[in-house]
Amino acid sequence: MFLLSQATSSFARENSIYFAMNPDITRERENATFNVEKLTHILDGGIEKTKRRREIESLVISDPDFQSEDLNFLSRSERYDAAVKKSAQMILKLREHGISDPEEIYCYKSCVHRGRSEPLDLHLAMFLPTLLNQASPEQMETFFIPAWNLEIIGTYAQTEMGHGTHLRGLETTATYDPATQEFVLNSPTITSIKWWPGGLGKTSNHAIVLAQLHTQGKCHGLHAFIVPLRSMNTHIPLPGVVVGDIGPKFGFDEVDNGYLKLENVRIPRDYMLMKYAKVEADGTYVKPPSAKLTYGTMVFIRSMIVREAGRALAKSCTIAIRYSSVRHQSEIRPGEPEPQIMDYQTQQYKLFPLLATAYAYTFVGQYMNQVYHRITGDINQGDFSELPELHALSAGLKAFTTWTASEGIEVCRMACGGHGYSRCSALPDIYVNFVPTCTYEGENTVMMLQTARFLIKSYRQASAGHQLSGIVSYLNESEGRLQPQSVSTRPTVVNINDLASLVETYKLRAAKLVELAAKSIQLELQKRVSQEDAWNNSAIDLVRASDAHCHYVVVKLFAAKLGEIGDTGIHSVLSTLALLYALQGIQQHSGDFLQTGLLSVPQLSQVSQRLKELLAQLRPNAVALVDAFDYCDEMLNSVLGRYDGNVYEHMFEWARRSPLNKTEVHESYHKYLKPLQAKL
Amino acid sequence: MFLLSQATSSFARENSIYFAMNPDITRERENATFNVEKLTHILDGGIEKTKRRREIESLVISDPDFQSEDLNFLSRSERYDAAVKKSAQMILKLREHGISDPEEIYCYKSCVHRGRSEPLDLHLAMFLPTLLNQASPEQMETFFIPAWNLEIIGTYAQTEMGHGTHLRGLETTATYDPATQEFVLNSPTITSIKWWPGGLGKTSNHAIVLAQLHTQGKCHGLHAFIVPLRSMNTHIPLPGVVVGDIGPKFGFDEVDNGYLKLENVRIPRDYMLMKYAKVEADGTYVKPPSAKLTYGTMVFIRSMIVREAGRALAKSCTIAIRYSSVRHQSEIRPGEPEPQIMDYQTQQYKLFPLLATAYAYTFVGQYMNQVYHRITGDINQGDFSELPELHALSAGLKAFTTWTASEGIEVCRMACGGHGYSRCSALPDIYVNFVPTCTYEGENTVMMLQTARFLIKSYRQASAGHQLSGIVSYLNESEGRLQPQSVSTRPTVVNINDLASLVETYKLRAAKLVELAAKSIQLELQKRVSQEDAWNNSAIDLVRASDAHCHYVVVKLFAAKLGEIGDTGIHSVLSTLALLYALQGIQQHSGDFLQTGLLSVPQLSQVSQRLKELLAQLRPNAVALVDAFDYCDEMLNSVLGRYDGNVYEHMFEWARRSPLNKTEVHESYHKYLKPLQAKL
Repeated sequence: MFLLSQATSSFARENSIYFAMNPDITRERENATFNVEKLTHILDGGIEKTKRRREIESLVISDPDFQSEDLNFLSRSERYDAAVKKSAQMILKLREHGISDPEEIYCYKSCVHRGRSEPLDLHLAMFLPTLLNQASPEQMETFFIPAWNLEIIGTYAQTEMGHGTHLRGLETTATYDPATQEFVLNSPTITSIKWWPGGLGKTSNHAIVLAQLHTQGKCHGLHAFIVPLRSMNTHIPLPGVVVGDIGPKFGFDEVDNGYLKLENVRIPRDYMLMKYAKVEADGTYVKPPSAKLTYGTMVFIRSMIVREAGRALAKSCTIAIRYSSVRHQSEIRPGEPEPQIMDYQTQQYKLFPLLATAYAYTFVGQYMNQVYHRITGDINQGDFSELPELHALSAGLKAFTTWTASEGIEVCRMACGGHGYSRCSALPDIYVNFVPTCTYEGENTVMMLQTARFLIKSYRQASAGHQLSGIVSYLNESEGRLQPQSVSTRPTVVNINDLASLVETYKLRAAKLVELAAKSIQLELQKRVSQEDAWNNSAIDLVRASDAHCHYVVVKLFAAKLGEIGDTGIHSVLSTLALLYALQGIQQHSGDFLQTGLLSVPQLSQVSQRLKELLAQLRPNAVALVDAFDYCDEMLNSVLGRYDGNVYEHMFEWARRSPLNKTEVHESYHKYLKPLQAKL
Repeated sequence: MFLLSQATSSFARENSIYFAMNPDITRERENATFNVEKLTHILDGGIEKTKRRREIESLVISDPDFQSEDLNFLSRSERYDAAVKKSAQMILKLREHGISDPEEIYCYKSCVHRGRSEPLDLHLAMFLPTLLNQASPEQMETFFIPAWNLEIIGTYAQTEMGHGTHLRGLETTATYDPATQEFVLNSPTITSIKWWPGGLGKTSNHAIVLAQLHTQGKCHGLHAFIVPLRSMNTHIPLPGVVVGDIGPKFGFDEVDNGYLKLENVRIPRDYMLMKYAKVEADGTYVKPPSAKLTYGTMVFIRSMIVREAGRALAKSCTIAIRYSSVRHQSEIRPGEPEPQIMDYQTQQYKLFPLLATAYAYTFVGQYMNQVYHRITGDINQGDFSELPELHALSAGLKAFTTWTASEGIEVCRMACGGHGYSRCSALPDIYVNFVPTCTYEGENTVMMLQTARFLIKSYRQASAGHQLSGIVSYLNESEGRLQPQSVSTRPTVVNINDLASLVETYKLRAAKLVELAAKSIQLELQKRVSQEDAWNNSAIDLVRASDAHCHYVVVKLFAAKLGEIGDTGIHSVLSTLALLYALQGIQQHSGDFLQTGLLSVPQLSQVSQRLKELLAQLRPNAVALVDAFDYCDEMLNSVLGRYDGNVYEHMFEWARRSPLNKTEVHESYHKYLKPLQAKL
């Protein structure tokens, strides 16, 4: 799988040096106790999937059209330019190679752009799918093929400068004019300017615009409209369309996130997406059949984000753990050579729980994807019953996994010491490209409160005697169990070495924290505040309950995954990881487990002790466990995370290629320093 | 104090619009219960200091030579260029204005560079001071005036590619050759290449190089040498000097962090800094009188970092809290207008504890600075007694404050939702420029373990019957007190509304966690492992103990500061902040307080309840509390954190000025998209 990177081979050729594999990292691989290749198959979802993924990666990596200079060396405009070039090439190549399966397109695309977002993201992931889902047959005919052929390049313009997660607050208007059978679109205020949509600034010539529909003097809420933005010939913005790039961001340098101000822009009546809701020629409004149709897409996108949380952490751990195996620093025993930094307990404590988390989230992502596909089948047959639960769960899991993964990436970066701060580590890039998941597609705290709403509703149903099913069925048992002041008075039956017992403990913690939040609301209501204020005044407890619920689900799914694994070596090492994940969560939230009386103080000391043992136990398998994620050097693009461990030589080579070294003397010397020296 | 920014005034002029103050933020200011100006004086250290700071800021802000385009719109090379230009100007202007007090220079400098690092940082903060401290009188004569006049531009080259925090591991050699009376400097391996020093890549023509001194066949450890790097006439690197920029980083775009490979570079004997250690003409080595002389500088730099932690958090809170007062989103009560997001309990819970932390760290920074100056006096009189304690404390506090501040900046950024991700928020910049403090000047985990070493040593001394003094004197009491399994069996006397009682509780937590760590080492030793392995196998507990110790010190110093404040209104609001800080720390580490039996479960519930009340209590003063930090718009450089609250208008204006909007149609359209459309 491992391919010599372009940079390496050219440097090696020029310098007639061929680096052998770093002996430290070789030794790590020799010490592994399980079959790495088999674990890769499990992570991919089967041997065939691994094979196909590698084929696709090879197609891209060996393709000279997709080579470019290190993006870190380019200006933003150059990075955008390079991305458009690659995306255009990609469309051609996908057809050339006959790749049409959505998963394979995703794989090819993320390989072309090395996991980065790109200008056509929203065209492919939002504009085309929204047409498929919401366009009438006639509209499909008009728009789909031109869009498929990239004649129409579209984006999805929902978020406004003043309005994000709360959709009902959107201000853009689409007012129907029966005289001309047109909609007139307007951005009535500065806060109503569309803001953030990817590809909107420079790339797209069309947008699906979400706007408040007004007809016959009434507002009918948000609907979707196809709005041409730029001339199909010249790409110049059309009259009334004020469009541009929103400027530099923390990351996403390749994407032209844009703004859009609409000033009396007129579109024909049949540019409103009319598969469900309709406006007739005379302006009569026809309602859509169901409001919950958009849930499916949201669940899908969130399941993708959870998978991305797993991937971002997996990449970060790959880099930090490989580097920790070749970096030597300080001393443990005086007089001996500097040890590998992975031998420090503190380093293991930083990295191994994150490694476990990367595995956990990968499995959770797989699960959500499976459930989504199963439920999608149900929905197509008109069965919406599981949707509310999945919708609620997906909101919380999106928030839970993106928060912890974001923090984890930074822990990995800092675990690489100073060198993690260099762009050559790739960790800054992973962070800035992943961290917006915490605030987009629903701000995380709002997402947590959405899950909490479902939990409280379920809790109240259970309290009222209804028998709950599904993942919240544990709330059936909770009543009467909660004895919050019982820390050391009643015996606990938790076995800290048994994963099933820990899953049970996480479940009870969730149950008790949901109950605690419900009681907080109750307490507020007794102060004669409104339902809404009582909710807001309990929001800290509600988020805490959601967090505990999600944590329970993750531990449960990790444990469930172990049941599917037959290979003894792999089962053994993944069991250790799962136990580490569960116990570290307990240690981090020890207050919860003590407060709810689920664990005693002596048990908590045992947890600390057991954690240390697990770290030592995982130590020999750490490199093999990140190897199993199977990120080739081209995808990682990290000098610190190189498969061969030859970090320092390549760091030097990378630095020498960087733009400031193009001349020996920077022009600023002649412009400012030399004249200054003359003056002083 | 508030000055209309350049951008605003030109935009306002062009568009003939003058924005009034945002009414939401005006209302916030009207509701404040204390005198903001007086609090600013306390933060500055006196009314005169506030006045002088504002004078200096005005000098810079009104100076047309220091205006530049938004740095976010420039390429890295342009940013470096702009920084060199400003730094050169700055040297001239400092002389012009007669500013020579180090604190005032620092203030002027950070205003010129808007708090960013710059190419001359190490010249001013390391090269010149090292000369002052370690050069002999003859060397001062040779080097100081040329360096003062920027003829010699110097940096401080210590860190190597393979060696950071562990100084003894440095590999660069300086071998004395008595035949020519020269030192021969070499980078014998790839890992020995100097890496990271600021200003080394392009700016400096000299460096103080730390190298292993070899003479008469013996190695005498690290010593400092002045090495000329570039021609004084042409700035071209001298023979044997391989020097350049290490490439792009997460931040620090203005700084040319560099590499330096030395290949048989010869320098005269008297280029070794010889105030203390010496090499005589024949190669005889003369030892320095004391090894602890460098402690002082390290303490000073760490106290500066702690102050910076306070500043970085203060800036971030200013932005996030002002924005939260003008941003409206979602709904609390149906039908009512969207509330200010600061009205959400979850938003308060994110931001107000960080606001309290910003105040806490500011006061801790002030304290450390005072102690440093007091002890420096003692040192000059030969009294080193307090130095070990301060050195140990400063290591831990540096780690403790930089970790929490870094996380806090990101919390502030994400509390601004999507817009926090835009560079116009300034929060990404604050983060990337502050976060390296976690890994430089001593990697944080190593720093924590340094403090732990002092704590364990003190604990053992106390156990052996010695009476400890100073900040660790609490360890005298700890023996016999620890009853870890006593959570609910013995009555606790903590009053959660009394700060003094909470300080005591934090103290006992620290004592118990130090004891726990000491016992862990003891336990390991019983397994017949070496002292060193026992230490490493207890490292998690040791870091935890250090963390608790630092937390105690911060709470204690915050409480102590309240005693100095006479103004009732300010005393009241700072007391609320201090209580919030202490209680939130308890909630976050509730496991510790339960596990050590210092708090009971019912008390913990009271803490949660009290925290909510404190948030509500602080709400009306939040904007005033950030106003008191007194960051003018030019220093904040944040559209979201504007004093006038007119966020959206300026965000739009900022975006329109951004580089991708220089043309309506980006060239990539003609190069890639148009040809592609023809092909499909």
